Parts: sequence; structure tokens; C-alpha cells
Amino acid sequence: MPKFQARVLISLRSSVLDPAGEAARAAANRLGVKGIEKLRIGKSVDLSIEAPTESEARSRLELLSDRLLANPVIENWSLDIQPSNTSKEG
Amino acid sequence: MPKFQARVLISLRSSVLDPAGEAARAAANRLGVKGIEKLRIGKSVDLSIEAPTESEARSRLELLSDRLLANPVIENWSLDIQPSNTSKEG
Repeated sequence: MPKFQARVLISLRSSVLDPAGEAARAAANRLGVKGIEKLRIGKSVDLSIEAPTESEARSRLELLSDRLLANPVIENWSLDIQPSNTSKEG
Repeated sequence: MPKFQARVLISLRSSVLDPAGEAARAAANRLGVKGIEKLRIGKSVDLSIEAPTESEARSRLELLSDRLLANPVIENWSLDIQPSNTSKEG
């Protein structure tokens, strides 16, 4: 059965405060890294999934993202998926 | 001064256990999402930075990633940066 590599990026909605990101931004300033204007911390989930078709894999991962990986009340997510056998790339 | 959008993806080194990812994988199975073989949870940091040149912005963000955002002992990171005024894209 074909395998797919996927990445789900989960970010806080822009209306939600991000105290961890704000702390990192302040720490960057103390570290001497200038010019940072925004800094928001999210999650990145790397998966591999086995499914008969890419659209089937995609629909399973959409369910997973909505129900388990992200909290849709405060987070947005985006899904990137591609076939796992990347030997044909280039 | 030019602005740049950047994203730093931080993932656990493959030799490091990921109990949170393992728990999410088990939960996916209980949720009825079949076929998930690997699941690793990392961080995604979205930033905007103001710097005179793209290479200057990149070197600042490399320092930041190495020293603050990631723990190089257990994590790898990758940096993606692009100019903020994307009106010329296409």
C-alpha cells in the first residue's frame, strides 16, 4: 500500500495571546538579536501514513488534525502531504 | 528597512524518544485513524524580522535558532526565510 509523508503545522489563531512566544521575543532581544517584530510559537507534526490513495490519506489526516492534533477553538492548522517514495524527485 | 518573514521548524533528533508523539499515535488509533506509522511532534516558530539584507536577517535567525529556540543537544532546526513584501510573487 502506498505510503505518504505529511506535515501538519499548527499555529495559534491571531486573536489568541502567545505568552511563550512573547517571552522568546524578549529573550531574543536580551540575547542581542535585533529587529524581531513578531514571534509566535506553534507545533509541527511530522507523520507517515499508509493509505490506498492520497485523497484517502488526506481525509484521514484532516480528521486527525481537527480532532486530535489541533484545538480548533484557539488554533489553525495546515496540512502538507506527498508520496513517500521520493526517489523520482529532482 | 526591509522586512522578512521566517519560519523555524524544530524537530527532535531521530535518536531521541518522543513520548508525546507516541501518545498521539496511540490516540489516533483509538480515534479510528488507521495507517499512521510514525508521528513526531516538533515546534514551528513564525517570525518577522527587520534587517538591512536577507543574509543579515538569516544570520541573526540562525543565531537565535541555535541559542534560544532549539536545544541542539536533542533537536534539529531548519530555517525558511523570504522577503515580507510578497506583492511581486507569481
